[in-house]
Amino acid sequence: MDVSCGFSILGSGSYLPENAVSAAQIAEKMNVSLKWVLGKTGVETRYFAENESIASMAAKAVNKALENAGVTASDVDLLIAAGGTPDQPIPHNSALIHKELDFPSTVTPLDVDATCMSFIQATKIAASLLENKIYKNIVVVSAEKPSVGLDYNWPESAALLGDGAVAFVFGSSEKTSGMLFSEFTTINEGVHLAEIPAGGTRIPPKQIKNTESDQFLFKMEGQKIYKLASKYLPDFFESLFSKQDCSFDDFKMVVPHQASLMGLGLMRRKLGIPKEKFYINVENYGNLVAASVPMALHELLHDKKVKKGDDIMLACTAAGLTLGALGIRL
Amino acid sequence: MDVSCGFSILGSGSYLPENAVSAAQIAEKMNVSLKWVLGKTGVETRYFAENESIASMAAKAVNKALENAGVTASDVDLLIAAGGTPDQPIPHNSALIHKELDFPSTVTPLDVDATCMSFIQATKIAASLLENKIYKNIVVVSAEKPSVGLDYNWPESAALLGDGAVAFVFGSSEKTSGMLFSEFTTINEGVHLAEIPAGGTRIPPKQIKNTESDQFLFKMEGQKIYKLASKYLPDFFESLFSKQDCSFDDFKMVVPHQASLMGLGLMRRKLGIPKEKFYINVENYGNLVAASVPMALHELLHDKKVKKGDDIMLACTAAGLTLGALGIRL
Repeated sequence: MDVSCGFSILGSGSYLPENAVSAAQIAEKMNVSLKWVLGKTGVETRYFAENESIASMAAKAVNKALENAGVTASDVDLLIAAGGTPDQPIPHNSALIHKELDFPSTVTPLDVDATCMSFIQATKIAASLLENKIYKNIVVVSAEKPSVGLDYNWPESAALLGDGAVAFVFGSSEKTSGMLFSEFTTINEGVHLAEIPAGGTRIPPKQIKNTESDQFLFKMEGQKIYKLASKYLPDFFESLFSKQDCSFDDFKMVVPHQASLMGLGLMRRKLGIPKEKFYINVENYGNLVAASVPMALHELLHDKKVKKGDDIMLACTAAGLTLGALGIRL
Repeated sequence: MDVSCGFSILGSGSYLPENAVSAAQIAEKMNVSLKWVLGKTGVETRYFAENESIASMAAKAVNKALENAGVTASDVDLLIAAGGTPDQPIPHNSALIHKELDFPSTVTPLDVDATCMSFIQATKIAASLLENKIYKNIVVVSAEKPSVGLDYNWPESAALLGDGAVAFVFGSSEKTSGMLFSEFTTINEGVHLAEIPAGGTRIPPKQIKNTESDQFLFKMEGQKIYKLASKYLPDFFESLFSKQDCSFDDFKMVVPHQASLMGLGLMRRKLGIPKEKFYINVENYGNLVAASVPMALHELLHDKKVKKGDDIMLACTAAGLTLGALGIRL
């Protein structure tokens, strides 16, 4: 495999809200057993933001990433907020994060949203812009606060999701590191399997009787998503490997979206990925929406489980239903 | 000026909802005079979608653009929905548009949001991805439905905005056409001058007393935005022209975001742009959020007021407050 768009990871940082919520607390809140929560989602701890906004969590992660990279705000050209949950309907998250960080006017704010796939899409975009030398340094931050939209009548998703923020600083590279490939497939029969029906322009707030309505909350048909994903994923990887002339053996590590512990285990076995190269951390944070993939990548780098020159694969399922993979040479 | 990222416009298409709303109707609704509406905004007609979603409007514009381009859905690699108003909080607009069009699985949906700057940012991203040959054909669609979020107690914005959709099909080019430059500056003291406060995670619906609250509606401090923009725009263009060694004389046409008739006229004179190369159509549609710039570009192409080889400049102010310009060789 060759690098198609050169970029390098200059640094990364993460931030979790203070309020840790245990599986037992969630079980009690939902009136289900602890065993059910752990069996269904595998999430032992997740963090719920209380008085913190997406912008404030994002700002903390960005500051850590800049420090880790040894880069100052004046070196940054583009700030991409990559995520599925907004602080406000208008303006875009990145503009609010720009303000929170009091970034200089030379940093341009931009949001990329493909729900759980947002970080992967933003990284692809950053790689392309850096390869074309349109920008020198790009910050991508995924900050998510799904906790406010949990529907405790849908325990499958309410017991799964958590809040948090992760930021990466990307710089240029002469193709010694960067993007190897990106591959996506979208099965649109699954578009309504994960959604918040109301609150946008299709069902605006004024059309809903009261603000406590569950129409403003997140619904996820986990079983159906898993079924659809597992139907299409084998062909997806077969096609990818055939195009790129590679296999899972060629990657030091596969970094999946942290959908759910059970789902991840089933999928890993179905696809024949060795356990030691399939990174799982959903127990510790829950599913962080778009922040799951970068959180896993950040940990792998921080814990030195991957190193410069390694080939890794970011892999994700997202609302759409979209399946996607991004190959990166570190 | 040289093309930095090659791309070509293969086709474009627009769609407006059926319901045309005159300045007189808006004046009556807001209990202000017709003279006030026309003097303040210059909008004679705008269109309000009734039973149409953003996805359905977008799909109609995309189909027209594909037909105009002579391109089929199976030739499209990426569908970027570029806009500031969502059909639903989750999933992203492009996923819902993908379903509405029943696009094949090979088309990847992705949202880009920089409010009114969204189309310009998406075009820059498309140009970069096409230059890197990551994709062959990209559809960018801006579909907006601000009508549902109008606050008639803020007549300045309520009398200004309109619904509509515009799509472009972009293909590759060996730098005979494409992006010349992109330039942005963000003055974050203005981040709250155009916003919808509630409905995201910062002030979720359940924190608001009732769904009729004006906290779910769009507020815009037009005068303050104009003041801030006009303070920074002269320096913005001076810096851009110095970097690119060019002036307004080098462009066949300047295509501004259709903020408001009065604002556009004042800005044009302040910047010294000749009237004949400054395209205005806000009278006919109102401010279409992110769809304003592509609507103007679509009309210019359709009416043959610009042609292959012409250099044009897309220019925009957006929530952030971000000022931006994109140079394109057609």
